[in-house]
Amino acid sequence: MPRAATGESSIARAVRIFAAFTPDETALQVSEIARRTGLHVATASRLIAELTALGLLERGPDRSVRIGVRLWELASRASPTRSLREAALPFLEDVHALVGHHAQLGVLDGDEVLFIERLTARDAVINYTRIAGRLPLHISSSGHILLAYGPPDLQERVLGRPLVRYTANTITTPEALRAALAETRRRGYAVLPGHVHEDAAGVAVPVRNALNDVVAALSVIVPNDRRAQAHVPVLLAAARGLSRSLTTPAAVRGVTNGTFGQ
Amino acid sequence: MPRAATGESSIARAVRIFAAFTPDETALQVSEIARRTGLHVATASRLIAELTALGLLERGPDRSVRIGVRLWELASRASPTRSLREAALPFLEDVHALVGHHAQLGVLDGDEVLFIERLTARDAVINYTRIAGRLPLHISSSGHILLAYGPPDLQERVLGRPLVRYTANTITTPEALRAALAETRRRGYAVLPGHVHEDAAGVAVPVRNALNDVVAALSVIVPNDRRAQAHVPVLLAAARGLSRSLTTPAAVRGVTNGTFGQ
Repeated sequence: MPRAATGESSIARAVRIFAAFTPDETALQVSEIARRTGLHVATASRLIAELTALGLLERGPDRSVRIGVRLWELASRASPTRSLREAALPFLEDVHALVGHHAQLGVLDGDEVLFIERLTARDAVINYTRIAGRLPLHISSSGHILLAYGPPDLQERVLGRPLVRYTANTITTPEALRAALAETRRRGYAVLPGHVHEDAAGVAVPVRNALNDVVAALSVIVPNDRRAQAHVPVLLAAARGLSRSLTTPAAVRGVTNGTFGQ
Repeated sequence: MPRAATGESSIARAVRIFAAFTPDETALQVSEIARRTGLHVATASRLIAELTALGLLERGPDRSVRIGVRLWELASRASPTRSLREAALPFLEDVHALVGHHAQLGVLDGDEVLFIERLTARDAVINYTRIAGRLPLHISSSGHILLAYGPPDLQERVLGRPLVRYTANTITTPEALRAALAETRRRGYAVLPGHVHEDAAGVAVPVRNALNDVVAALSVIVPNDRRAQAHVPVLLAAARGLSRSLTTPAAVRGVTNGTFGQ
């Protein structure tokens, strides 16, 4: 592997450059990228030029740098989350139509929830998770599902770390989290009113694959008005449909056997 | 830029590895990756090990290699297509609910249509475009929109190249394509019955940004039964709503100002 003098490979540096962009800062000047990555401006410039030539980055009219469409394409077309995401979209639509609020699908990645899809209500007033956004497991209803049905070592890791407070309702002690997870397993769903934001409640249920493993959490974000629990049946129904579609071969489903359109 | 003996950088080689995966082949053995990329097995192995350590690739239980969730996350969270895609989803849902077939959003990338979002009918029999899939401009209704409203040099490039035939209906002469594009501009929409596949018709309309530039094509894939044109009004209405949402600042829309959920 060719490496620069510091011992860090150019691929590792490229990852640091990609990671400098955020959902709110999708265009950055070279100097800002250098600052955020800790790379010398000359080094950053050279790498950005190479990444731009490969289409992984793009330059705007004001010379600002953005993530390139080619990177998105390479990451998306064979993404490990693609088939789950595609299978989930019709069920997310059903939930969205029936509940009328934000509906989303989250998976475990590292020790966090990574949201791989969501549908949003056009007139909703409550803020919500982003696609490709992350949340800590202990504060989100999806996180409680992924924790409650996750591997024991994951639970122990999370319970052994400080549980950061987001609101007055956030669970911040291992005992309370352990009790909440036991309750989630007993009921088969998680309802978290005001744990991330005072005005919002999260409701989540597990999505299982053909082996009956929980592979994702299906959730809605609704107003925190004590009616959140009423959405559980719709979520459970949608999750069952999605689970069934995950256990049916793709050729039968007809979901992933097409390569053309017009 | 550190380079291997052949003069190709490790980043360029990594791109070749990412590009070896397809929507139908999301898991590959190292030997197959070496074959597809033309890299020596030892070189491919070293690169795959580094990319796996960075999370850009993942190893399955059978040692097969996949695109990593981290690559998808880096590419998606600040993707240049993200805001358009997020703004479009509610309108795609409306189209999908009213038309009942595949609805999709395509943008121009290179000299092709790149589909950045779609909603699919669960029981649809017709094959369709994939997310992050591409189609030549001359065969798809979305391509006709992007060509008809695109820069003149793009039209000249496409008209100057061989127009590959997909079905008996595919337009394969520059004269016929020029006439079809003029008609598309005159009518404000494109209907292509059976140009990609005999059984499917594509219907597409332009999506404009705040500057009135056409930035995307909104389309449906429906059965090729001479009723395709009936879907034009729904598409035009959805495209107008989407265009309006693109011309409204994000803070007012409430679409992209949230960073949390639960």
